Amino acid sequence: MTGSGTDRTRPSIAGQAPIVILVEPQLAENIGMCARAMANFGLTELRLVAPRDGWPSGGGLKKGATAAASGATHILDNARLFPDAAAAIADLNHVLATTARERGQMKRVVTPAEAMPGLSERIGTGERVGILFGRERIGLTNEEISFADAILTFPVNPAFASLNLAQAVLLCGYEWLKASGGEPPFRENNPSPPASRATVLSMFDYLEGELDRCGFFPPGKKPIMTANLRDILHRLDMTEQEARTLRGVFKSLAEGPRAGRSEPKA
Amino acid sequence: MTGSGTDRTRPSIAGQAPIVILVEPQLAENIGMCARAMANFGLTELRLVAPRDGWPSGGGLKKGATAAASGATHILDNARLFPDAAAAIADLNHVLATTARERGQMKRVVTPAEAMPGLSERIGTGERVGILFGRERIGLTNEEISFADAILTFPVNPAFASLNLAQAVLLCGYEWLKASGGEPPFRENNPSPPASRATVLSMFDYLEGELDRCGFFPPGKKPIMTANLRDILHRLDMTEQEARTLRGVFKSLAEGPRAGRSEPKA
Repeated sequence: MTGSGTDRTRPSIAGQAPIVILVEPQLAENIGMCARAMANFGLTELRLVAPRDGWPSGGGLKKGATAAASGATHILDNARLFPDAAAAIADLNHVLATTARERGQMKRVVTPAEAMPGLSERIGTGERVGILFGRERIGLTNEEISFADAILTFPVNPAFASLNLAQAVLLCGYEWLKASGGEPPFRENNPSPPASRATVLSMFDYLEGELDRCGFFPPGKKPIMTANLRDILHRLDMTEQEARTLRGVFKSLAEGPRAGRSEPKA
Repeated sequence: MTGSGTDRTRPSIAGQAPIVILVEPQLAENIGMCARAMANFGLTELRLVAPRDGWPSGGGLKKGATAAASGATHILDNARLFPDAAAAIADLNHVLATTARERGQMKRVVTPAEAMPGLSERIGTGERVGILFGRERIGLTNEEISFADAILTFPVNPAFASLNLAQAVLLCGYEWLKASGGEPPFRENNPSPPASRATVLSMFDYLEGELDRCGFFPPGKKPIMTANLRDILHRLDMTEQEARTLRGVFKSLAEGPRAGRSEPKA
């Protein structure tokens, strides 16, 4: 495992992951975009069933795929070729078939979010798991779907349901990484601890004293206006540093322009 | 709302959704693929900030985008153009900025799965919400990020973290639809109810009787082998229909070839 972003040939997600099986993909660009989507989410093993234009086909198809893969060439280089879907899944223990349409089969139907925790568990116990993706226009045949343990489908806008191949692979990879404990690349960068209540109340005291001095509060209104101001400022849920910054802002406004202030000090 | 798949110009997801704002997108193809990803998940409003090659730019850029949009032309037709990010978000109440890199800002960082339920709640109370997406190569400027309430980032493989623009939009739309109660287009198609225990036990009786008749059980082994067989078959969690189908299969095997069986009956 590497945390470095420089070595793009090695995924940082260790171990097995679901195998992506593209059945008779037509466009080299789609194969490449699938490889990129796989790499984005730590999927590593790609299988190709009878790509329409051959593979590598004298370099032509693979070249187009490589251009679309944006660097995920390790996945294309290691892709294995099979004559049909049955051969491509022969060594697997559990298989899902993706489809966007009801096929009238009495098979369990799951979304990626529902499926991936179970796949993760299977892979954790040593099973080999694959996901079949069909041809760009017509998908998988009913026979190919009959090879699978369950149907995988996607929650989409029913009025515009057509996902492209790489997007379907992307959503599977995304949910796989989520189910495998994937984290965003970074979180809040906030080295300062939450402000202590003493710091906040001392800031309030300073602010209210200065506003008093400026005649901000109309007669009799100070208690309610002070309460409102405190409500606004509490909502910031400030860090210690932010409380000090705000106090500095109020102080600067209260003191007004200072001689030599805008000139750099020697 | 329409449940029909034929009218692709009208999303079936009613009401507001987050507004997608592309800041200085360069490639027409990417704009089109973003529109398609939006349509897939019921996002409807697209804003473009100073696209590199203009918009519609005599038709050239928009034509390329339309080709890549695979029919999501209603989104491109209604896209609004703005000179800068500040203008594009001026009428919004809540704004997220997407970025793949740590920016050293002390801003809340959320993933799409974390963000969308909150956005859904805001939109439900009438707020207008937008998501800023940066330029293909360099993303958003730090100033543009400073306009936002929070940073949105994606859980990805750290060794291969570069998502393309449409994929980032796709993941936001996908989590938006999930948070809005989106459902897969279909579920199990199984009209038969679960088998009653009586049907299953009667099938066991038939099977075990036939196996006895065939001399399947070695002496003294019938109890344990019967228990094992029942364990295997119980695991099927059969429907009524499936129990009858299996009984028919066993019966056919037990009875062997029948005269005239393969010929259609008059």
